[in-house]
Amino acid sequence: MLDSPNLALLQAYFSPWPHLSQAQQALLAENAAQVRYRKGTNLHSRDSECLGLILLKSGALRTYLLSEDGREITLYRMGPGEACVLSASCVISAITFDVHIDAEEDTEIFLVSASVFASLAKENIHVECWSYRTATERFSDVIWAMQQMLFRRMDQRLAVFLLDERARTGQDQLRITHEQAARYIGSAREVVTRMLRYFSEEGIVALSRGGIRILDRERLRAIAGE
Amino acid sequence: MLDSPNLALLQAYFSPWPHLSQAQQALLAENAAQVRYRKGTNLHSRDSECLGLILLKSGALRTYLLSEDGREITLYRMGPGEACVLSASCVISAITFDVHIDAEEDTEIFLVSASVFASLAKENIHVECWSYRTATERFSDVIWAMQQMLFRRMDQRLAVFLLDERARTGQDQLRITHEQAARYIGSAREVVTRMLRYFSEEGIVALSRGGIRILDRERLRAIAGE
Repeated sequence: MLDSPNLALLQAYFSPWPHLSQAQQALLAENAAQVRYRKGTNLHSRDSECLGLILLKSGALRTYLLSEDGREITLYRMGPGEACVLSASCVISAITFDVHIDAEEDTEIFLVSASVFASLAKENIHVECWSYRTATERFSDVIWAMQQMLFRRMDQRLAVFLLDERARTGQDQLRITHEQAARYIGSAREVVTRMLRYFSEEGIVALSRGGIRILDRERLRAIAGE
Repeated sequence: MLDSPNLALLQAYFSPWPHLSQAQQALLAENAAQVRYRKGTNLHSRDSECLGLILLKSGALRTYLLSEDGREITLYRMGPGEACVLSASCVISAITFDVHIDAEEDTEIFLVSASVFASLAKENIHVECWSYRTATERFSDVIWAMQQMLFRRMDQRLAVFLLDERARTGQDQLRITHEQAARYIGSAREVVTRMLRYFSEEGIVALSRGGIRILDRERLRAIAGE
């Protein structure tokens, strides 16, 4: 059972809450587990059992596709307050695929088991509707990622990624490896390293062991096409 | 106003129909227009106005993304009885992207204007829920297409496409151009032509002016990894 600050968070994050009956609210509150994951942990994969509904309390999750030869395509990332229904795909018949989900930072979630979530969605059309709406929002994220990946030039994708990271962290100094950057933009590390070296020679970024420092945001914006 | 055979079709295709009030049923029946499109017509694009809800009566529609330099990525195709809500994205806030939709054959649809569809979805949670579920099903189609495109080798993608076409038409003789095949598998015509020439030299297909004939289905299945 959640304590009252955590229950308040759960109510805020799970927007159909006001539409639940008292019995349904009790079922959810009693069955929402708090789970912590260390940075780098894989929460959900194509081969794992259906995890259930995730409501993200703190940290960050990355959702991606994985090919048989180990290539990854990042679909979207989630932060505190966001919900993930793809981890409950086994109980949503309209979702016929499985994604991989990793903790990008130390992460804490509320986890509602697939069976409890399924019974709420079956009994309460507001829950069902919310789960499809949440999936549809992710659909929009994925189409955006697809357009980035398929249609933008590599330098543009990298510039957009660096600017996004700067906006997310509020820092010019980004603590990311070339490997991570490559993963986010769906490319190979060698390609990213080559492109970063070019950005560095042009005075757009400075490279160091600790990461990448943005020196010329205006030129980065121009490359990003913003 | 639709005649009674067409009204019966509309009711069958629009699954929330039994949940509509009499007034809502009348609103829908009075506002569902029958529209015909010639093969090759563009119904909806990123720049066009919001078309509304499409219920496909006959023919075939193809949904795709289009890059600024004219490259296309096929997301999915629709046949009779299927619904398209992406063409009503302006009234579904969770959908933040726009797709292009073409008639692949002479096509007839029931079209419900965006404003009528929006008022039904606002008044009736079953309609709202159905529109998100329909979008979520398309999300599944798009993830499938993405996996095909990003992770499969080109020969495998082409083999899968040829087998899918054979299954769809029931014919070994496929009336498709290399240009069309390239579009469906998200590749360049030159790449497809090269691969088809290889398939032809191996005795897997025969190429002619009229199209592509499948000669050795077993080997095509082996390449497709089925």
